Amino acid sequence: MRTVWLNGEFLPETEAKVSIFDRALLFGQGVYEVSPVLDGHYCNWSHHAARLERSKTTARIEDDTDWPAVLAELIERNQLTEGRVYLQITGGAPADRDFLSPQPPVPATRFAFTQEARVIDNPVAQSGTRVMLFPEARWKVRSAKTTQLLYAVMAKEAARDAGFDDAWLVEDGVITEQTSANAHIIDSRGVLISHPVDHGVLPGVTRICALQIARYMGLEVEERPFTPEELYAAREAFVSAAGSLVLPVVQVDEKPIGNGGPGVVTAEIRRRYIDLLRAV
Amino acid sequence: MRTVWLNGEFLPETEAKVSIFDRALLFGQGVYEVSPVLDGHYCNWSHHAARLERSKTTARIEDDTDWPAVLAELIERNQLTEGRVYLQITGGAPADRDFLSPQPPVPATRFAFTQEARVIDNPVAQSGTRVMLFPEARWKVRSAKTTQLLYAVMAKEAARDAGFDDAWLVEDGVITEQTSANAHIIDSRGVLISHPVDHGVLPGVTRICALQIARYMGLEVEERPFTPEELYAAREAFVSAAGSLVLPVVQVDEKPIGNGGPGVVTAEIRRRYIDLLRAV
Repeated sequence: MRTVWLNGEFLPETEAKVSIFDRALLFGQGVYEVSPVLDGHYCNWSHHAARLERSKTTARIEDDTDWPAVLAELIERNQLTEGRVYLQITGGAPADRDFLSPQPPVPATRFAFTQEARVIDNPVAQSGTRVMLFPEARWKVRSAKTTQLLYAVMAKEAARDAGFDDAWLVEDGVITEQTSANAHIIDSRGVLISHPVDHGVLPGVTRICALQIARYMGLEVEERPFTPEELYAAREAFVSAAGSLVLPVVQVDEKPIGNGGPGVVTAEIRRRYIDLLRAV
Repeated sequence: MRTVWLNGEFLPETEAKVSIFDRALLFGQGVYEVSPVLDGHYCNWSHHAARLERSKTTARIEDDTDWPAVLAELIERNQLTEGRVYLQITGGAPADRDFLSPQPPVPATRFAFTQEARVIDNPVAQSGTRVMLFPEARWKVRSAKTTQLLYAVMAKEAARDAGFDDAWLVEDGVITEQTSANAHIIDSRGVLISHPVDHGVLPGVTRICALQIARYMGLEVEERPFTPEELYAAREAFVSAAGSLVLPVVQVDEKPIGNGGPGVVTAEIRRRYIDLLRAV
């Protein structure tokens, strides 16, 4: 049984519970981060910490947990070598339900848990994924990493129902993101195109690293939205996310991307990113 | 101490807790209803039940709780005569975090609680509220009553910070709703104008009743979006919501509505609605 962390205590996973008055439960007032764990260490903390601060400001949550200490001990207690670590901070649990946060404030609810996963030897890195296009309908504050995720759940389940692995979301004629990953293409010129970081997409930590690696490899990078037509005509397509790193996308709706197999540039970005994570 | 209800048990409010793996906590996968309680009875159940079914379908939640029995016993155990009763159903608590619902499914998490409140003798019915305009940025599935409410929290708190009671949201040049209530005006001709029920606004139970009453009173009702300019020029403005019934709005940003006091038509709709609730 996993050990999880809740408000300062390490607990068996089945004993970690929060009040029904918690503001994340009643209002979705929660922010979170997911970091990959490789060789027993969580990665990219400075990026995650910076984004977490911004998410907290947006969601009006205050907290000063010493996350590095919590995450390190959690990983050690669970003897996790490879997988992910998840943390969440909520608006806390006042005595009653009210949209307005209580004054004076109540303490934030904070919890974290580990997940074992094959991050490196992920078979999907070899097979690639098949995605469908789906209308974008999430809220417009996607720059914050919050638990406003019901639409992502609905889109992923619609994709599963339709026989796909996931969905890429389309708004005003352009792709924003995959439901829970940044989306990128490499066009016929070999240029990497990626939606710019604004309120329309999450400022992905893995995205930052993947784009840096691409530039280091000599690729031209255009940070701008791209259309479904550009996607269909792309040489490669891939997604980036902390939990799964970089993964190739080989099909969109009924159309194969490039030659229908994982792209070689995508594979090289993935390989270099894993090297980078292990070297730090 | 209140008695609340959680997954079939009546519990002291401080003992009602859910797993940190609950899908409402991790993904905002929760739907809810709020009903006014008058004279010890909850109201309008058939409308709330119908909407709850639609919300569950949208949010991909399955459950067949006998809510009327639960709510009636909860109200009785708490000896509540006037206030509100709240119920929520979530996607349940699987063993681990995954956007996709587990297959086979896990049971939904279900809870309910009462809140004492002065629904009838609400001083705001006499004073009216002052609201500010604020950009609409919620998700586009507002027809379902879900816990995707963080933006409503943010807008309400921004209004509080700016010295207002609440915010009316503006999208593409028209008013959608107040953060957690339907918004209406009575224009200079005496016509009631209310945003139509589509994905842009919640199909409010109180809205249905208020519009029926207005028609019965002989008012012409136009179900169409209205602009901030129409709002500024309106004779009256009001909001409708299950928890507070019908309440006048007397000021928008720095502009008084009508003569700056609660509208007479609004007051009459409120009075008739209270009579209706008590007569059923």
